[in-house]
Amino acid sequence: MSSISFIGTGNMARTIGTRAVAGGNTVEIIGRDESKAADLAHALGGGTTTGKWGAVPAGDIVIAALLYDAVVPAITQFGDALAGKVIVEISNPFNATFDGLAHSEETSIAQEVAKVAPADASVVKAFNTIFRNVLEKGRPDVFIAGDDAPAKADVAAFIKSLGLRSLDVGGLKMAHWLEGAGVVTVGLAGNGVGHWDFALGANDFSG
Amino acid sequence: MSSISFIGTGNMARTIGTRAVAGGNTVEIIGRDESKAADLAHALGGGTTTGKWGAVPAGDIVIAALLYDAVVPAITQFGDALAGKVIVEISNPFNATFDGLAHSEETSIAQEVAKVAPADASVVKAFNTIFRNVLEKGRPDVFIAGDDAPAKADVAAFIKSLGLRSLDVGGLKMAHWLEGAGVVTVGLAGNGVGHWDFALGANDFSG
Repeated sequence: MSSISFIGTGNMARTIGTRAVAGGNTVEIIGRDESKAADLAHALGGGTTTGKWGAVPAGDIVIAALLYDAVVPAITQFGDALAGKVIVEISNPFNATFDGLAHSEETSIAQEVAKVAPADASVVKAFNTIFRNVLEKGRPDVFIAGDDAPAKADVAAFIKSLGLRSLDVGGLKMAHWLEGAGVVTVGLAGNGVGHWDFALGANDFSG
Repeated sequence: MSSISFIGTGNMARTIGTRAVAGGNTVEIIGRDESKAADLAHALGGGTTTGKWGAVPAGDIVIAALLYDAVVPAITQFGDALAGKVIVEISNPFNATFDGLAHSEETSIAQEVAKVAPADASVVKAFNTIFRNVLEKGRPDVFIAGDDAPAKADVAAFIKSLGLRSLDVGGLKMAHWLEGAGVVTVGLAGNGVGHWDFALGANDFSG
């Protein structure tokens, strides 16, 4: 099992954290607001601990569970405290009309995190194509992207512990297109699918 | 049923054309090389006809079944011959390393087609996330994008006649992100999925 620290105390930390505890992982919650972190740790149970904002996280895998525009500032603030960590970046940087990304250039929050993270940290994009409500109850595919194969293997093992299938899409630059897949998912919810209880998956037709 | 013209005589015209004939649609093949068009029309059967390159297509729906860099030149060449048509654009403008798009700006071949097509033609992006081998034997979801609702309804009816589910992702600018979903699909084939017999789909978790 994995040792996981969440930076953030919001809905995604709660949802992934719930599955992480159920999957037997060691979980730590780190919030700017320590009382919110304590509340979430208590709610998650299973020995979930709290950490101090900006200090070295207990987990080997650090999940940045923050709104997209808070991610790079937080990783910058943690700085060398994240040395050697696997940083999982899960955000969707939607534009104001939810039909594109907030950054016009061909990048991603994950790639921007890699620029400010310690040199020996590894960044993996994951989970961003999955709506929270689906993650609460279903078994959607989890697409991951990153440049470091051992880091991706660690994240894949963690995802497996959640009862989910991870699917590697390639290097970290693919994080841009995973963010685009998030845009497609929201587009489907508002148009052809018409609800939020679905997720993109890789469906097999080899049979 | 629909009346369909294919511009192009390659693999995608053959694959979609086969399903189109099976679905009871009227099919026309238009090729620069008229003998190739005649060969494909003969192979498809079901009364498939051939048209003349650059002349008014017989079909109400015109599928540009060409390599991505040939699409805009062909639509430009047809010009006013495409007045009033629904133009379906299906290409994947991959870069040389298949991990991004050939155009660096946030556009799509479908949007570029809309710029050169007659003002009363409508452009719909469709089919690009589906590998040909899957389209030959499976029932993958077909994602569509376009600005004109009646045109999308026409394309959706055609897709239904193929035995497939169409899913609207939104306006034509979403074609860029559908092209990105094509990049994700190729990334999955080369990495986490490891084969080409799959397609992205919208999987329901509402149950």
